[in-house]
Amino acid sequence: MKSSLFLALAGLLSANAQMPRPQPFESPVVHADRTVTLRFAAPNAKRVELSSQFTVGNQEMRKDEAGVWSITVGPVKPDLYPYNFVVDGIGVSDPANPDLFPNERFKASLVDIPGDPPLIHAVRDVPHGEVSYHQVKSAVLGATRPLLVYTPPGYRAGTDRLPVFYLVSGTTDTEETWFKVGKLNSILDNLIAEKRAVPMIVAMPYGNMMRGTPAPNSPQAADMYRLFSDELTKTIMPFVEATYRTREDREARAIAGFSRGGGQSLFTGFLNQDKFAWIGSYSAYLTPAVMEQRFAGICGDPEGTNGKLKLLWLGVGKQDFLYNDARAFDEFLTAKGIRHTSLTTDGGHTWMNARAYLTETLQRFFR
Amino acid sequence: MKSSLFLALAGLLSANAQMPRPQPFESPVVHADRTVTLRFAAPNAKRVELSSQFTVGNQEMRKDEAGVWSITVGPVKPDLYPYNFVVDGIGVSDPANPDLFPNERFKASLVDIPGDPPLIHAVRDVPHGEVSYHQVKSAVLGATRPLLVYTPPGYRAGTDRLPVFYLVSGTTDTEETWFKVGKLNSILDNLIAEKRAVPMIVAMPYGNMMRGTPAPNSPQAADMYRLFSDELTKTIMPFVEATYRTREDREARAIAGFSRGGGQSLFTGFLNQDKFAWIGSYSAYLTPAVMEQRFAGICGDPEGTNGKLKLLWLGVGKQDFLYNDARAFDEFLTAKGIRHTSLTTDGGHTWMNARAYLTETLQRFFR
Repeated sequence: MKSSLFLALAGLLSANAQMPRPQPFESPVVHADRTVTLRFAAPNAKRVELSSQFTVGNQEMRKDEAGVWSITVGPVKPDLYPYNFVVDGIGVSDPANPDLFPNERFKASLVDIPGDPPLIHAVRDVPHGEVSYHQVKSAVLGATRPLLVYTPPGYRAGTDRLPVFYLVSGTTDTEETWFKVGKLNSILDNLIAEKRAVPMIVAMPYGNMMRGTPAPNSPQAADMYRLFSDELTKTIMPFVEATYRTREDREARAIAGFSRGGGQSLFTGFLNQDKFAWIGSYSAYLTPAVMEQRFAGICGDPEGTNGKLKLLWLGVGKQDFLYNDARAFDEFLTAKGIRHTSLTTDGGHTWMNARAYLTETLQRFFR
Repeated sequence: MKSSLFLALAGLLSANAQMPRPQPFESPVVHADRTVTLRFAAPNAKRVELSSQFTVGNQEMRKDEAGVWSITVGPVKPDLYPYNFVVDGIGVSDPANPDLFPNERFKASLVDIPGDPPLIHAVRDVPHGEVSYHQVKSAVLGATRPLLVYTPPGYRAGTDRLPVFYLVSGTTDTEETWFKVGKLNSILDNLIAEKRAVPMIVAMPYGNMMRGTPAPNSPQAADMYRLFSDELTKTIMPFVEATYRTREDREARAIAGFSRGGGQSLFTGFLNQDKFAWIGSYSAYLTPAVMEQRFAGICGDPEGTNGKLKLLWLGVGKQDFLYNDARAFDEFLTAKGIRHTSLTTDGGHTWMNARAYLTETLQRFFR
């Protein structure tokens, strides 16, 4: 038995987690013409579909004699996309694909369709920074929580103090999502190599305040944003500034995030103008009511606010289910005379857009 | 619509990955009596089972009116265990559980049954080290590959040079498995806090040499181990020693690993006795044939070998499917007069045992 690789490997797997034997195929396979083939072994399933953000609606897959379902789609526009299989109605990540979408609730796989020239999130032959995982004790939340921190190429050997960008992920995302899906590290490695971004430290906290998930326009959302502001300023910033060589002036601190993280970033940036001069909102907003109630000082003093803010950046997709709310926030700022920069793109509330907005703002911060 | 949290969140999810709406329940839930409840929503499934390493065989789950399948098992012996659901024959990780088992082939979830006092892998209120993700360009493999590196508490503020432990994971595991499943960082944080281990740097490379998965006792396995030795000594060690404050004498270098990683560690340690004085094998072995053919010098000079090796440590479980091979290796070393330390435990080829063997060796290295 030991002489059989197949049995040996099946044994390893079954001993590890009693899972099915390894697939005798690869999935996904991205072809030269940018079509992609996906495969899933399920001899007894009645129906297997591909659910992805590179196809419109679910695509039915076909089963071969061996019970392996497959589909080839595309050519696909180069980008990094989430997908999963729907097996008789159940969402399943791709067992053959180690690249997973870190999330509290769903389990999707990731497929990268490379561009030519390579996209900005591709791992290129440039100096690489690193991403460090920390455990940080929070008196605010009464828990020890994870924090990821990117440092640029050469940081360990260097002596410079660097600006810090606090980057917050969205509802159901984890502290890993900006790293594993947002590709913050590769994007920033590439922008720094091209001198399109300045070297900076990027702290990626876990944005879930463990107080449920209030709707973005509910009063509870503003209370949760307030709690996040306390956690960021009382726990995370002191940890980052004690652990890394940071600049500690407001013009050397930025905050931005996607979805809930965008709301948290707007709220925290507005509430702590003495600490942040650069604010970004990706597919997010604050309601006019929250602005009037919580930030009367900002709404009533546009000149003072404009004098303090180096950048207030808003990005949203036309198909985003939050588009109308994001537009209302944008128009509110305009009506109040608060200077801001807006980018409206195609697409929805997706991480493809989140990466695009990140790439935009990384080139503007700290210059 | 936006005023409905449920629709807003469902919108977020569907926009993120077209996944089902979030479960209105938690899974897993570990109770005070160390029983654990697991839940999975599948209104249309015919049969849902729990497959885990804390139950013997698969356990059938029961469906409620809402179509949510659940089961409560235990009390469970405190440890960190992999599990998944088997939905009409398809293995599925737990959608409600963000803790996944990093692996190339299967997708299992992790549940931690806490002990009292807390187990050695628990996140305790002690100073914490950090784990850094690097991208390392390999001339040996012609690719840029991931590398994880643990540094102990206080490393960034310190000036000491530290010993380095190279820790290799097993077949189908990834470079993340020793971190996310092996809990190297928490175990070492706790051992260092209790002065049961010396502060050290731990480098966790990706052990897959991308040359298939030869059976552990095949000639191809030895060739793959040889390639790993080249990659470790020509790519990984130079990177680690250029990036971190390392001691660079052989008595300040250890290598160990689980399963395939154990074979790679034995082979690399024996082939590079000038570089390594501490070697550990967790649930692994080299065949007598490989020892005779590749390491005649070691087999023929036990005194010289014993004089060089500070520790040759072997651990295996009685139910491990590699147990007989591991025993044969142990007996071969004894017959040749090569000094070694053996630990035989209960259990199989599991990460519960891998963590136990890691904890043993961390207390012996570099003292």
